[in-house]
Amino acid sequence: MPVTARQIVLARRPEGPVRAQDFALREQTLGAPAAGEVLVRNLWLSLDPYMRLFMAESGSIHGSVDLGAAMPGGAVGEVIVSASESLPVGTRVMSMAHGWRDHYLAPADQLQTVSAEVGPVQRFLGLYGLTGITAWGGIHGVLKPQPGETLFVNAAAGAVGSIAVQLAKRAGATVIASAGSDAKCAWVKQLGADHVVNYRREDLAARLAEFAPEGVAAAFDNVGGEQLEILIDAAARQGRIALCGAIALYDSANYRAGPRNLFATIEKHVTLTGFNAGFYFARAPEIIADLAAAEAAGALVSTETVIEGLEAMPQGFVDLMGGESRGKMLVRV
Amino acid sequence: MPVTARQIVLARRPEGPVRAQDFALREQTLGAPAAGEVLVRNLWLSLDPYMRLFMAESGSIHGSVDLGAAMPGGAVGEVIVSASESLPVGTRVMSMAHGWRDHYLAPADQLQTVSAEVGPVQRFLGLYGLTGITAWGGIHGVLKPQPGETLFVNAAAGAVGSIAVQLAKRAGATVIASAGSDAKCAWVKQLGADHVVNYRREDLAARLAEFAPEGVAAAFDNVGGEQLEILIDAAARQGRIALCGAIALYDSANYRAGPRNLFATIEKHVTLTGFNAGFYFARAPEIIADLAAAEAAGALVSTETVIEGLEAMPQGFVDLMGGESRGKMLVRV
Repeated sequence: MPVTARQIVLARRPEGPVRAQDFALREQTLGAPAAGEVLVRNLWLSLDPYMRLFMAESGSIHGSVDLGAAMPGGAVGEVIVSASESLPVGTRVMSMAHGWRDHYLAPADQLQTVSAEVGPVQRFLGLYGLTGITAWGGIHGVLKPQPGETLFVNAAAGAVGSIAVQLAKRAGATVIASAGSDAKCAWVKQLGADHVVNYRREDLAARLAEFAPEGVAAAFDNVGGEQLEILIDAAARQGRIALCGAIALYDSANYRAGPRNLFATIEKHVTLTGFNAGFYFARAPEIIADLAAAEAAGALVSTETVIEGLEAMPQGFVDLMGGESRGKMLVRV
Repeated sequence: MPVTARQIVLARRPEGPVRAQDFALREQTLGAPAAGEVLVRNLWLSLDPYMRLFMAESGSIHGSVDLGAAMPGGAVGEVIVSASESLPVGTRVMSMAHGWRDHYLAPADQLQTVSAEVGPVQRFLGLYGLTGITAWGGIHGVLKPQPGETLFVNAAAGAVGSIAVQLAKRAGATVIASAGSDAKCAWVKQLGADHVVNYRREDLAARLAEFAPEGVAAAFDNVGGEQLEILIDAAARQGRIALCGAIALYDSANYRAGPRNLFATIEKHVTLTGFNAGFYFARAPEIIADLAAAEAAGALVSTETVIEGLEAMPQGFVDLMGGESRGKMLVRV
């Protein structure tokens, strides 16, 4: 029998900060799966800052969403009707392409199974998914901190940042972390950061100079824009900066722009390395095993902020972009 | 007896391209050296693009020259009067601080001796000096090309670029090089470049796409500005770019600015590493020995454009910045 699927579509392209009204809820009737297809009911959906880039007409390597189309994004669901031997009913699967919706039809061979044996399935959208792989890639793939080195992480109360702080500590770095409220800073300190800076209330450059008088050896930048400029100025000689994202700029058409002080990298032999999780997918089994073992051993805390229901997703995304969440933001469908 | 020393001073700060009138010749009477000092007669002076940065009021890590003061820069000279046992008359010495002048007095312990046994003494301003160490640092310290990799060098007819092309070839890279005239391109091809692009006449981005359809793995950027943006767009996945300078921007107060497409580094996992020769001075003996041996074996050509006389130096610098020289520009005093 047909299923009424609900989806969140892009209703208009935001100018400046995203608003809940930029999205709309649409219904769609799904029939039975054709041969080789399955019908999936989503259990968990992911909300991530990079989704803001989908909403612009220009798009990016992340792509651009057509007006009226569902927002793409990570989802973990369960097969409820199957016309494929490879994915029987009850199988848990992950998808990126189908995005913000409660049910979808898809060819079985385009889905990836997830195992509840590794841990709670929603972790495949967080610690065992893009979030964890991004944090791991930035720390262990790009920055490779040495014990005793000073490493800075911004947006440290966010999904990627909060994992990056913990991975850096585990590698023996002295971690300086910034977040946008005293409460978030206190939480990040609980995660293990040695020093915290509320960048909204304190002078980040001055605090970095105080905590790292010889300069910051390694920095994990999620924010971009003026914060990246501060990090370049604060970098030690031969310092390195992992460029993970530019949340500060995603509301601007100018989000691709570089810092006004790039020349300082020539003066100080500073390295900027952009990266994204896709470059570490080939190592995902090893990375996920490492992260899951650390979590199981109590050496890594995966914090989730959970939104209830698909219809709450637009406001959840607005809150995410406004810095209102801690750790990974998830939607329970 | 006193010596009349001539020096080239900064007469006014250029706005836009430098002109010969921005400099002036001044005379100065030098007495006998005090105890521990020597009087040096310069034999060779260096002209380098980074000197343009001295001329701006804001300066940079390179410093700013006061109006009326002599331009700093590399010089090789001979001790003609000595009040220091460590530097007898006839010793060849190198200095940076005393700059564009024919004679100077200096404490012996602030000068570095150079040996004619390594090769012609003017090489210490070029192949065995800042120029060679910069090229070596960018190729072997930063880019580390693997055999068969595609490596791009711009300003390839210049002092650093022409050495970088040859070092990259020696490392087994496939070298694409750009210069500003067909004649310079033909010369760079003689130096070993596999492909050359006259960026003034040809579309650099299109030619890079043709010569490196999978993207440019490594690039040595002397130019900055829009050329750096083209290199970021042309970079292969996990490509790397050594930032050596920004000649294209030195006439602008905005020379410190980054590219408008930095975000592409996140999409492609591209690394930008700024560097300068100072970070490789500790390895200078090893680097100079390597370069001198390669030159002696005929595996490396050090080309010099020689200007005759101190008074020709201002116009020589204008010509250098206008791209009129090949290889290292030197002044024979």
